Amino acid sequence: MRILVTGATGLIGNAVAETLEDGHEVIRASREADPSVDLTDRESIVSLYKSLGTVDAVVCCAGKVPFKPLAELTEDDFRAALNDKVMGQVNLVSAGLDHVADGGSFTLITGVLAQNPIATGTAASLANGAIESYVRAAATELPRGLRINAVSPTVLEEATGYHPFFPGFPQVPAADVAAAFVRSVMGVETGRIFRV
Amino acid sequence: MRILVTGATGLIGNAVAETLEDGHEVIRASREADPSVDLTDRESIVSLYKSLGTVDAVVCCAGKVPFKPLAELTEDDFRAALNDKVMGQVNLVSAGLDHVADGGSFTLITGVLAQNPIATGTAASLANGAIESYVRAAATELPRGLRINAVSPTVLEEATGYHPFFPGFPQVPAADVAAAFVRSVMGVETGRIFRV
Ligand SMILES: NC(=O)c1ccc[n+]([C@@H]2O[C@H](COP(=O)([O-])OP(=O)(O)OC[C@H]3O[C@@H](n4cnc5c(N)ncnc54)[C@H](OP(=O)(O)O)[C@@H]3O)[C@@H](O)[C@H]2O)c1
Ligand SMILES: NC(=O)c1ccc[n+]([C@@H]2O[C@H](COP(=O)([O-])OP(=O)(O)OC[C@H]3O[C@@H](n4cnc5c(N)ncnc54)[C@H](OP(=O)(O)O)[C@@H]3O)[C@@H](O)[C@H]2O)c1
Repeated sequence: MRILVTGATGLIGNAVAETLEDGHEVIRASREADPSVDLTDRESIVSLYKSLGTVDAVVCCAGKVPFKPLAELTEDDFRAALNDKVMGQVNLVSAGLDHVADGGSFTLITGVLAQNPIATGTAASLANGAIESYVRAAATELPRGLRINAVSPTVLEEATGYHPFFPGFPQVPAADVAAAFVRSVMGVETGRIFRV
Repeated sequence: MRILVTGATGLIGNAVAETLEDGHEVIRASREADPSVDLTDRESIVSLYKSLGTVDAVVCCAGKVPFKPLAELTEDDFRAALNDKVMGQVNLVSAGLDHVADGGSFTLITGVLAQNPIATGTAASLANGAIESYVRAAATELPRGLRINAVSPTVLEEATGYHPFFPGFPQVPAADVAAAFVRSVMGVETGRIFRV
């Protein structure tokens, strides 16, 4: 398979790309990578797809959201979360519809905060909830046997800087998160949220 | 209690306002009502709260989203859904934090599409999913004993024009939806999604 991984230089994206590289051609993209893409700019996504031609799967491991106490989250903060993690991934799908081969797939990233809140996480929760409902709905209308899923990790074992914000939450190794992406890319399921 | 109902001229809002008027002072607001408010414009929300002083509960029964086949949903369509149903309600809460009395509440509107898709409903699903995760998270950080919930109706019995788009879905009478709002406003629960 020919697989586009966006956010491939990140903690999760790098683990996913390394795992998929065992047997597949992986194109690692991010703002600073080559090919470069800025998910907050639809034109940049369109250009990336044009330069790539056809791929068999698109994976997203990017998506930034501001973390602040609820009382300090401004309208701009919520809009930033929506613009980046939500619209970035929505545009990655819609701009990619004509560039993914028949039976191919999209796999997006969400996170445990959709269901279980942490302090300062309201904008993240909102963005994750949007992505999960989007994936369940979009799966029913994709053409040509295309599939779409999302992976929802709890906090990563390797993301030690975040551990104090996730007291008592289970931690997941990046390798298990990567396995969920493999299941989505290589399997047959669609409209699913893989919680790891 | 003194209760602000936004979207009070609509199918759901009118049922909610009528039910709450039995024993409470209800302020019915919408773009065309007096007092007038446009939830897509944060300044308009701020002005409404200033003109009202303190209320005990805020209820939202407004929130528009475009319905189109997935392939026809543009970036602007998704942004319109986010701007109206999501940011309208988020701003109604954040601008209202200093205008709701101790122990008061916010009750937002979502809908069955967060979990169960229909054709043309992807932008609606996305918006509803965002609101549900937002409510669960925001509930944990509200000050002064404030509460927040959302009501998630399936299609209304009275919304006959929508019935063809919800084949086999259960239908709920507006009175039952209004009861869920009463439970949120008068009860003690918080961070809950009341599915009716
Ligand atoms: N880490 C966790 O414990 C955890 C748990 C659950 C969910 N998540 C979610 O998983 C996602 C990735 O997390 P992570 O910890 O792996 O993040 P990370 O290490 O910060 O990596 C982010 C990746 O995304 C790229 N990126 C950032 N903004 C971009 C943009 N606008 N356009 C294109 N690429 C962009 C970055 O590269 P460039 O800077 O070169 O663009 C990088 O490759 C996030 O949405 C996060 O919320 C993380
Ligand atoms: N009807 C259903 O079966 C059903 C089922 C599940 C969920 N829902 C959700 O429930 C909500 C209300 O549905 P409905 O059927 O009651 O809608 P509706 O009959 O169209 O009423 C909408 C109400 O919101 C007001 N409104 C619209 N845009 C506004 C804005 N920008 N600022 C302030 N007020 C605004 C309208 O008055 P003005 O025009 O004067 O502003 C009206 O009072 C929607 O979010 C819908 O998705 C509906």
